[in-house]
Amino acid sequence: MTTKIPQVPGFRFAGVTAGIKKTSLPDLALAVADKPATTAAVFTQNLVFAAPVKVARERVKQGKCQAVLVNSGNANACTGKPGLDAALATTKAAALALKLAPGLVLPASTGVIGQVLPTEKVLAALPALVNALDEGGAAAFSHAILTTDQGPKVSTRTLRLGKHTVTLVGMAKGAGMIHPRMATTLAFVFTDAKLAQPLLSRALRVATDQSFNVATVDGETSTNDMILVMASGATDAPALKAGDRGSKLFQAALQEVLRDLAEMIVSDGEGAEHVADVEVRGAKTDADARKVAQRIATSLLVKTAMHGKDPNWGRILSAAGMAGVRFDPERATIHIDDVAIVKDGIGLGPDAEARARLIMAGPKYKIRVGIGRGKGRASYLTCDIGHRYIDVNAGYRS
Amino acid sequence: MTTKIPQVPGFRFAGVTAGIKKTSLPDLALAVADKPATTAAVFTQNLVFAAPVKVARERVKQGKCQAVLVNSGNANACTGKPGLDAALATTKAAALALKLAPGLVLPASTGVIGQVLPTEKVLAALPALVNALDEGGAAAFSHAILTTDQGPKVSTRTLRLGKHTVTLVGMAKGAGMIHPRMATTLAFVFTDAKLAQPLLSRALRVATDQSFNVATVDGETSTNDMILVMASGATDAPALKAGDRGSKLFQAALQEVLRDLAEMIVSDGEGAEHVADVEVRGAKTDADARKVAQRIATSLLVKTAMHGKDPNWGRILSAAGMAGVRFDPERATIHIDDVAIVKDGIGLGPDAEARARLIMAGPKYKIRVGIGRGKGRASYLTCDIGHRYIDVNAGYRS
Repeated sequence: MTTKIPQVPGFRFAGVTAGIKKTSLPDLALAVADKPATTAAVFTQNLVFAAPVKVARERVKQGKCQAVLVNSGNANACTGKPGLDAALATTKAAALALKLAPGLVLPASTGVIGQVLPTEKVLAALPALVNALDEGGAAAFSHAILTTDQGPKVSTRTLRLGKHTVTLVGMAKGAGMIHPRMATTLAFVFTDAKLAQPLLSRALRVATDQSFNVATVDGETSTNDMILVMASGATDAPALKAGDRGSKLFQAALQEVLRDLAEMIVSDGEGAEHVADVEVRGAKTDADARKVAQRIATSLLVKTAMHGKDPNWGRILSAAGMAGVRFDPERATIHIDDVAIVKDGIGLGPDAEARARLIMAGPKYKIRVGIGRGKGRASYLTCDIGHRYIDVNAGYRS
Repeated sequence: MTTKIPQVPGFRFAGVTAGIKKTSLPDLALAVADKPATTAAVFTQNLVFAAPVKVARERVKQGKCQAVLVNSGNANACTGKPGLDAALATTKAAALALKLAPGLVLPASTGVIGQVLPTEKVLAALPALVNALDEGGAAAFSHAILTTDQGPKVSTRTLRLGKHTVTLVGMAKGAGMIHPRMATTLAFVFTDAKLAQPLLSRALRVATDQSFNVATVDGETSTNDMILVMASGATDAPALKAGDRGSKLFQAALQEVLRDLAEMIVSDGEGAEHVADVEVRGAKTDADARKVAQRIATSLLVKTAMHGKDPNWGRILSAAGMAGVRFDPERATIHIDDVAIVKDGIGLGPDAEARARLIMAGPKYKIRVGIGRGKGRASYLTCDIGHRYIDVNAGYRS
């Protein structure tokens, strides 16, 4: 499957097979800007973070970077000094090949934890990788960053600003260890927008909070998570300024791209067949609503009920009751899309459930929970959990 | 399978089939003391709690109760006033049949949420149930309280106090929705010990904290959880006093019984094939150690790795890193039983892992994690999660 991806002025991309994965699938990706690009990133909050995260976190502080070298198949996490050396050596070699200062190249890795990135395989593949760089290479990039994903995850937006355009291309990989409290998984957004670093940084934080931070597959948070945005400024549109129309459009577009990617990741949640948007209303505050939505979205019993297409509202209500948020269960309502299945904390019977069951057979629906205390609301993406999740994760390293 | 269970002076037990379950398995149990017995209980902390919990919580406050009527197959949770009426009507009918005041009979229910307990089925079965009451009826009781369990869960201890004995018989049901922050699942301990209610109550709280509160199957907490201890005082041993040798022995025995039951429940965790005791050492405080142990014990990726008999220490370390406890991952150690697989945060290689893998093929082992900060320690029971969990929980109501 190849996705038709628009070009982003100022960037070239490539993806090749370096032999890091046991399969012959592509596993080394490179994105390069023509000039140092305004860069912002959010990283894993895990105390245990991988060598590439350590290096990238430091380098992103400069506010300008020019390339990102991504490998899949190996997370280079929990690898101590040899892992750090590998992250430094591979980005240094890429910088040399690209004639850049090493500090301008960011590393990113994803895959198995606990094995040192095989530097020699990366070095051997670098000439072909650099040679393959092309304005139209984003599709190759999007494939080479995948691990257990079923397919590439790409989302794009084009803004019209007067007679000018600004393009955003986002690419991500899933599909396990997906849970908030951080930038989750690896995601990259490339844009030709022209804007100052603080504005880009703030846009990324807000967009992440409304996308990756409200999506869960399995409640896990990885050692390697990172969302990176690079803005080449190559558009002929004027620079975005905080508060102007263009920056608002850009903020919205960035949020949509990340939301798309988050939803693709949840949909591809290692065997997921159903995606639910858990919408909670009527909490005292939005923060309370998010707590309730998160507790429901992460409940294993809710997720297995989703797998069984079973509108098992008792599990939904029970999960809500453990969120640490006070409400009166006897005022709770639950809908599956528009079908009411619980009113005043009590089930509405088999006819309502039969209608809900039909909806739950579909690939996507809403679980809407009202708790009748106020105006706080939140939503949270989740997926079912079934046999493939077990197979993928019980056998991942074998 | 029938377990040989010692009699507890002062108690009679019974279990019959009332037709509450769809199968013909026993689903109604009764335990009755000859006289009002000193009683203590801990209950679910879920905001959403079942009608029987509401009634029992109120009645236990008296400090003396004389009977507990338990049904399986129906949780009578989220059932509003009809559910409350059912809990009141069935315990009232049992009290009548036993010639007791209704307030001395405690209800307990477990099973599907959201359906009102069928009062008429309970009433119809009561005469046979009361008729079956027998000093040797504990085995029947232990069967009738089960839901998705593979078999009954019974643990007993006998204390020698001089020339006297005190007996404790504990019975519990599992096997899903098992997670702390409460008394988890239904568990009952009957003893002929003689002691004051505050002493019994404190003993129960301490014992629960060291048993059910450090055991997890799926991170879920139910609407019906309850651990009940009834002490008939029928022993000829002298009354236990706070701080005396007898009360210490009793405390230890109660804790052992609850720990046994918790371990049986985790072992029977809806398809579990492996139980691990996650032992964390070297935290700054015991509380910190417990946080780390809990995060590891509840990690889906750790639990699926257990299922795959895979010493995937990266997942263990990554889970520890998300516990909200500060430590230096580069000082972490991990052992599977006595086999070291991680030192200074780095894997010890394939030979060590091969030895660990052999251990993980067995039914029970320790995952020992050291984080090198202090003397805090904790342990936490968990099990693997595999296909049967999915089958049981995706199809539970069908």
